[in-house]
Amino acid sequence: MRDRRDELRWNGWGRLDRGFETKGRDAAVWAFVADALGTARLPSTPAPSLEDTTLPACRAGAGLLDALARATDARRVHTSTWERAFHAHGRSYHDLLRLRSGALEHAPDVVVYPTSRDEVLAVLRIAEDARLAVVPFGGGSSVVGGVEARGGPAHAAVLTLDTTEMNRVLEVDGVSRTATIEAGIYGPALEEALAQRGFLLGHHPQSFEHSTLGGWIAARGAGQLSNRYGTADAMLVAARIATPRGLLETRAFPASAAGPNLNQLLCGSEGTMGVITDATVRLHPLPEARRVFAFLFKGFDEGVNAVRALVQEGTGAAMMRLSDTEETRFFGAFRRVIEPSRVHELAEGALGVAGYDPKCVLMVCVEGATDDVAREVARIRAVAKSRGGLYVGEGPGKSWWKRRFEMPYLRDPMLDRGVGVDTLETATEWSNVSRLYEAVRLAIRSTLEAEGRRAVVLAHISHSYHDGASLYFTFLFLRDLAREVEQWRAVKDAASRAIVLHGGTISHHHGVGVDHAPYLDDEKGLLGVDVLAQARKALDPRGNMNPGKLLPPRR
Amino acid sequence: MRDRRDELRWNGWGRLDRGFETKGRDAAVWAFVADALGTARLPSTPAPSLEDTTLPACRAGAGLLDALARATDARRVHTSTWERAFHAHGRSYHDLLRLRSGALEHAPDVVVYPTSRDEVLAVLRIAEDARLAVVPFGGGSSVVGGVEARGGPAHAAVLTLDTTEMNRVLEVDGVSRTATIEAGIYGPALEEALAQRGFLLGHHPQSFEHSTLGGWIAARGAGQLSNRYGTADAMLVAARIATPRGLLETRAFPASAAGPNLNQLLCGSEGTMGVITDATVRLHPLPEARRVFAFLFKGFDEGVNAVRALVQEGTGAAMMRLSDTEETRFFGAFRRVIEPSRVHELAEGALGVAGYDPKCVLMVCVEGATDDVAREVARIRAVAKSRGGLYVGEGPGKSWWKRRFEMPYLRDPMLDRGVGVDTLETATEWSNVSRLYEAVRLAIRSTLEAEGRRAVVLAHISHSYHDGASLYFTFLFLRDLAREVEQWRAVKDAASRAIVLHGGTISHHHGVGVDHAPYLDDEKGLLGVDVLAQARKALDPRGNMNPGKLLPPRR
Repeated sequence: MRDRRDELRWNGWGRLDRGFETKGRDAAVWAFVADALGTARLPSTPAPSLEDTTLPACRAGAGLLDALARATDARRVHTSTWERAFHAHGRSYHDLLRLRSGALEHAPDVVVYPTSRDEVLAVLRIAEDARLAVVPFGGGSSVVGGVEARGGPAHAAVLTLDTTEMNRVLEVDGVSRTATIEAGIYGPALEEALAQRGFLLGHHPQSFEHSTLGGWIAARGAGQLSNRYGTADAMLVAARIATPRGLLETRAFPASAAGPNLNQLLCGSEGTMGVITDATVRLHPLPEARRVFAFLFKGFDEGVNAVRALVQEGTGAAMMRLSDTEETRFFGAFRRVIEPSRVHELAEGALGVAGYDPKCVLMVCVEGATDDVAREVARIRAVAKSRGGLYVGEGPGKSWWKRRFEMPYLRDPMLDRGVGVDTLETATEWSNVSRLYEAVRLAIRSTLEAEGRRAVVLAHISHSYHDGASLYFTFLFLRDLAREVEQWRAVKDAASRAIVLHGGTISHHHGVGVDHAPYLDDEKGLLGVDVLAQARKALDPRGNMNPGKLLPPRR
Repeated sequence: MRDRRDELRWNGWGRLDRGFETKGRDAAVWAFVADALGTARLPSTPAPSLEDTTLPACRAGAGLLDALARATDARRVHTSTWERAFHAHGRSYHDLLRLRSGALEHAPDVVVYPTSRDEVLAVLRIAEDARLAVVPFGGGSSVVGGVEARGGPAHAAVLTLDTTEMNRVLEVDGVSRTATIEAGIYGPALEEALAQRGFLLGHHPQSFEHSTLGGWIAARGAGQLSNRYGTADAMLVAARIATPRGLLETRAFPASAAGPNLNQLLCGSEGTMGVITDATVRLHPLPEARRVFAFLFKGFDEGVNAVRALVQEGTGAAMMRLSDTEETRFFGAFRRVIEPSRVHELAEGALGVAGYDPKCVLMVCVEGATDDVAREVARIRAVAKSRGGLYVGEGPGKSWWKRRFEMPYLRDPMLDRGVGVDTLETATEWSNVSRLYEAVRLAIRSTLEAEGRRAVVLAHISHSYHDGASLYFTFLFLRDLAREVEQWRAVKDAASRAIVLHGGTISHHHGVGVDHAPYLDDEKGLLGVDVLAQARKALDPRGNMNPGKLLPPRR
């Protein structure tokens, strides 16, 4: 059911046999990027091979490896350079910088692939005895340092527990529309198995092809269609989590007043409370129909008001994705580079005349039963029109839909050419969206431009709610090759401070990880963080589970 | 803004100037109840007055009372018999038995009404120093022992902290559709204040007139219209909770991946983690239109399938309330006693001929914008019809709607006549609804009938979800006057065991309290309970907050 690990890149995104498709227009693409960044030519900065990369010495002794082999199977206990390098980091920009540095400072000492809940519990007992840090690892697609193979000073070694051999659909309850599924299943395998029963889960983050159910829950993620299918916490009905103190199991109830909801404590626990082994999730019938279409707005604020009206009036979009003027312009231009079309150019020229330049594009996806889709499309068009939206048909949406899991493949070739690219995201109440948007954009742009270089800062709303929305920022810049990590950290810190100072959450769907843990005090308060620390301690008294990935550092 | 406490019953439901309206047909009502319980005549069992009721000696010394007066105001610190008796218990059947027993075993030693967050914190500091148990008390309508004025062996006295002087709407954010409201506000005052701004919260439990926002959140409640407006955990955006370790404040985000959601730990915390002082909640526009209408089904299972289809197909009912055949018959007959009508009788006779006897009634409420209501009513009628539902118009619904907060007033006159009446509720997945329904009914009926007496056991579904539904049981019986509490406990224990054994949650919306705490080990597991215990300890290290109301007793 799962991808073979050796078909994947150890130091970049996704499958070795795939990449970002430029349709033979490579030179034009890179000229466009260079131009956007205000430079004539991009440098060549290829990644060193695994052979040319050093790893820290492996600290796993024969006794430990024997014990792990007995708990699982010798074929599922790995200390090879490839396995250690593949599991050293997630796939954030910061991670890629380090994976491409020629020298890994951190890597797991051993990687284990258990095949069952009992094997996970056995591995955790061994780790407890040997005082190992345990890093649960699903698809490894974290972009916030959620799977970094790093222990604390008290740990003898780091064990990465790869969950992807636990990938079965255990039960489908078609009446209650729930399924119980092992946590290490990848997105495509999960949806394929459910589709055979007429259902879908509908959790489709950009990492869909290379992330797992357990990771979605542990990081409290959201898929692109979360307006219809819900975020990870909404789809979660029950979970089993293997902890150093044994198995914690929540029960499957549609709702309950029997005290606090423990699902909501496990969801977002970032592997620091244990390893989610399987979960029961809410299903939906396979959609009969899907429509993806777009509107233009004359500005971001106007678009934001339209999205707010659409969600508050209860229209049934599965996705509403509103790009700001910079993102609309950048991706419009980018698309013209890879898919040049005289028709598009004429059409866009006409829109400029009609007062839609600058403009913001809103992409909407509606899916479900045929009648429902027809009804909701009509309602959405009416509300969008009343808010100044110009319907521009299905063209832009179709193109986006086709490439919706492909964007991460663009990062590696950018990194090969001296370009830095990162994303970060937040969410806030509607009344605060504009203020937060401006503050974060300013923080990113001014930090990058302080070096006297041009930066491209793009933003969109990808998830909207009754009371607020997410904001997602993408920024491109020329790397300062002498101080790549410092350059990145300066931007990340400035943006994160802007977020917490201006009423945003430090993450809407990427999760916590080492990157965001330092901001949890600001967001949850010292008392709130202590509540989490004590809850965690009840499950992992010695602090072996994924250290540093949730709680803020304490000196 | 609030009801004056002295206008309320200290030992029964609601306002002294209100009661269950029998429209001059008192004798017929009681003859009907007697007949239903298989007896010729009901005994007279009036409640003793407050003057004839003994209370435990007050343990609050002058030093403590002085300190509390300085922290709040002398007029807000009470040790009168009336205040102590009013706050001794909630309003469960078990509570009423004890409030009518002539001798209260438990009562608070002092009752304090703080007016602000800072005053609450000051009171908690005093309680900490004096080693008092603190019982947070809103409307006091708990039916599961959630506000019982009882401390542990280590406590010098019991202080009940009445929140109802904190009853202001602090802020309405019309753009984000949220409001920040003090926790001690009663339902009607809250909705009145919001209505002036064009909004409603829509949380209308049966206790609506005599319960508070803080209580709804602390007990993780659900209103009658929760299908549209959400349960307490869904409406909660952020909260401030005063704890013995200081103020814990969650932030208002529409969604967040910044670790576990602390709102979901406070929601359902039953006063054991601190006192909720104010909360930010999601609002909805005032509905332009409302329709309440009913269908008949030929049996409960058929009705259950229809409700499931209606919710899974996404039709927009605010409420779907399906009575089983016994409840439909009992309340139909009861209604004919209070509102005799030849037209009804003829109509119901005709339905019997048409094969709808026995029958189950499904009441549906739809509200919202006029167009939306019209559209959803049509969709609901189509789906219900396709599932065997016979549309019977707006008559039964109108009558229920008018009396929807009135049923609790019926308990006191029943108790005056030797009749016992209690309710309990649960929730489970759709595939388990029938099994759980039968098991709980059998447990209640067989326990009551073991004494050789007839019992009336009624059930309905009141809240439905994508993946399951709640089940609500009402049972009437003749009290065994020599052993009233033991008789009640036998039924409660049998039903609770049936619930946990057959896949139900111990409560869907009543909460935990002393009645359900013993079942939390079964529901959450020892490890799950320990997580809650440790989280609680982070906020209340000495265990002073509402002891015994959430965590199971440990010996």
